[in-house]
Amino acid sequence: MARIVMKFGGTSVANLERIRHVADLVAAEAKAGHEVAVVVSAMSGETNKLVALVDDLDRDRVDGRNDTLGGSIDDEYDTIVSSGEQVTSGLLAIALRRRGVRARSWLGWQIALKTDMAHGKARIDAIENPELSASVGDGNVAVVAGFQGITEKGRISTLGRGGSDTSAVALAVALKADRCDIYTDVDGIYTTDPRIVPEARRLNRIAFEEMLELASLGAKVLQVRSVEMAMNHKLPIRVLTSFAEAGADNPGTLVCEEDAMMEERVVSGVAYSRDEAQITILRLEDKPGMVAKVCKTMSDANVIVDMIVQSISKAESAANLTFTVGKRDLEKAQSALEAVKDEIGFEGITSDSNVTKVSIVGIGMRSHTGVAQTMFEALAERGINVEVIATSEIKISVLINAEYTELAVRALHSAFELEVA
Amino acid sequence: MARIVMKFGGTSVANLERIRHVADLVAAEAKAGHEVAVVVSAMSGETNKLVALVDDLDRDRVDGRNDTLGGSIDDEYDTIVSSGEQVTSGLLAIALRRRGVRARSWLGWQIALKTDMAHGKARIDAIENPELSASVGDGNVAVVAGFQGITEKGRISTLGRGGSDTSAVALAVALKADRCDIYTDVDGIYTTDPRIVPEARRLNRIAFEEMLELASLGAKVLQVRSVEMAMNHKLPIRVLTSFAEAGADNPGTLVCEEDAMMEERVVSGVAYSRDEAQITILRLEDKPGMVAKVCKTMSDANVIVDMIVQSISKAESAANLTFTVGKRDLEKAQSALEAVKDEIGFEGITSDSNVTKVSIVGIGMRSHTGVAQTMFEALAERGINVEVIATSEIKISVLINAEYTELAVRALHSAFELEVA
Repeated sequence: MARIVMKFGGTSVANLERIRHVADLVAAEAKAGHEVAVVVSAMSGETNKLVALVDDLDRDRVDGRNDTLGGSIDDEYDTIVSSGEQVTSGLLAIALRRRGVRARSWLGWQIALKTDMAHGKARIDAIENPELSASVGDGNVAVVAGFQGITEKGRISTLGRGGSDTSAVALAVALKADRCDIYTDVDGIYTTDPRIVPEARRLNRIAFEEMLELASLGAKVLQVRSVEMAMNHKLPIRVLTSFAEAGADNPGTLVCEEDAMMEERVVSGVAYSRDEAQITILRLEDKPGMVAKVCKTMSDANVIVDMIVQSISKAESAANLTFTVGKRDLEKAQSALEAVKDEIGFEGITSDSNVTKVSIVGIGMRSHTGVAQTMFEALAERGINVEVIATSEIKISVLINAEYTELAVRALHSAFELEVA
Repeated sequence: MARIVMKFGGTSVANLERIRHVADLVAAEAKAGHEVAVVVSAMSGETNKLVALVDDLDRDRVDGRNDTLGGSIDDEYDTIVSSGEQVTSGLLAIALRRRGVRARSWLGWQIALKTDMAHGKARIDAIENPELSASVGDGNVAVVAGFQGITEKGRISTLGRGGSDTSAVALAVALKADRCDIYTDVDGIYTTDPRIVPEARRLNRIAFEEMLELASLGAKVLQVRSVEMAMNHKLPIRVLTSFAEAGADNPGTLVCEEDAMMEERVVSGVAYSRDEAQITILRLEDKPGMVAKVCKTMSDANVIVDMIVQSISKAESAANLTFTVGKRDLEKAQSALEAVKDEIGFEGITSDSNVTKVSIVGIGMRSHTGVAQTMFEALAERGINVEVIATSEIKISVLINAEYTELAVRALHSAFELEVA
């Protein structure tokens, strides 16, 4: 007998037929004698519909009349959009009862998932209601509305897009669950995107650190914060498909602490992200503190700087500074830099949004040499030019021309023999 | 400066255009310096959509497997359908802020509207959160989700169809408001249904007792419980249209304690209800306690008995007993009676669902004689036969053949000169 948290995203509960199927999956676990809590998202499309209503009304601004009132509506946004998960949780509870399983819905404020005051992208502080664990311990399935919590002021908050993953992991931690099963529309974590590399292979296991790098690097399966939280609490996450029949073979991928088996593998996966743009500052004065000033400018503009490289030419006592930002932040970043051009002192800016970041990730890299060499050779053989390089203990990322994305991913997948189990 | 509760039903907030209009009406009151709380229903159609989802899932019963689990889902029903009002309250709060008015949404559990455990038709115990009144007193418009509350177990409850009227009156009482304005799709309470009598006149004032009789008798404008509660707390209710422009002349009808002006009027209105069915028990034994036994049979079957009349024929020591029940309870009532036929002792049952109850209501009837005579003469002149009569201090109801409904309503409206102000 185990205690399990099961999480189902929007496509898994898209309509009543899918909700009935989810009820079958949950009922199978409950009837096998496990203690079960379920976290559900809104039926797919519902959140977008609610957001559209808010966006429409939000255009009714009173110009200049009262700036503070023209300000944030995030508290009401949260009250509105959280209703989607509320509906799904009630519907799944009914479907479970109709299958002979004792179940009840729990909303964010009922469990009570306390968050900070950052409406729309709140962070979880604690799950406080002891009745939840007692109810699950008594054999009741808890059907928890994901994505939502409650602030210290008693208002509904939401955790940002993909927040239901984080709800599920936080719930699993609070319930001291044995594991958290994230049901989704793919059957596990792959060595790379199978749409690009048909030979991509489902991984049986992956280490938290690897998953974290892959999640940050553009693999969309799990929200980054949910992986961080699971890693901090050593809580295993299983990623598996919600489209299999109840009782069918559906191993998925276990995200867990690294073990000996994993270390035999040098590289676990190849990730890519098209959401990148490159900025180069030309002939930045080569004085101490110049890079820090650029970074502060970006930070003040609320732009996150990712990869960064400086190419110094001693002869001229000036340097080019190249870095990447999110594609949607490119214009904001450029305007912010132009505004401080004279103060900081540089000649000009060039930018390129036709770039992709391709990364290899693997905890085995810590103890193996020659990984970078294999990577750069594989890229060079295909004539792929590397613009910027960034590394961490368990990953190497390169920025390349976007045209070469698929070629680079295939080259690296093959070079590290990821198609072989 | 007054403290006002404004209530808007589903058709008044049916879409964003209507919500914007409601925001204009509320903003006008707030900017006139009043302290305002608003109660909103779900956007029309939303509640039905949610109920349809629940009904669909509710058909997945596990036959005989577990009767207790096959039982009530009313707690989850409440969690699901209450989301409709939650969305409207958030949207109206946003629309108000965008008009320069400080506003926030409050859900049933936030204000906190405590109810009993009767999910789906809960009764209000109290409104407990002192922050609500403080916030309104500070000049913030409170936008309250109607129809919903919270049980002592911390679950969401709902108040039954039309429950937002009761939410509004309860809120007005809790906030010690000066009055409660119920905005609806008609511009007030009429002397009778204008679809039947084009000369029907909007009343400027009506007494609580009269409104209560009219509401019970089939006038659909206000929920009966809301009028009872307002009467008990001497809280004036104004019924007016939400379709007028902000600032336009929109007096509506004030429902309030009776005053001298009203007493000049003998009859205030003519109501009718087609939701009636008549049952006659033939040759019931004429012994003490027989009528009580029939009433107990109905009560045990959860059927409400309304008008009741006994026609005794001493010669035979048997009597016919005629009474009315709601049309939808007719079959249930007949089965229950057949089951105790021998025990109670009667010859047979006849029934007729082709009947209408027509009533005249007026507090002036207390001090005026001849009202009944005027009524029966008006009906007799048109050849309308009266089947059953029921009276109270301020009303006379007759049961007639449904074919004569419009004719009877017009005859009575004219006989009491209700078309004259």
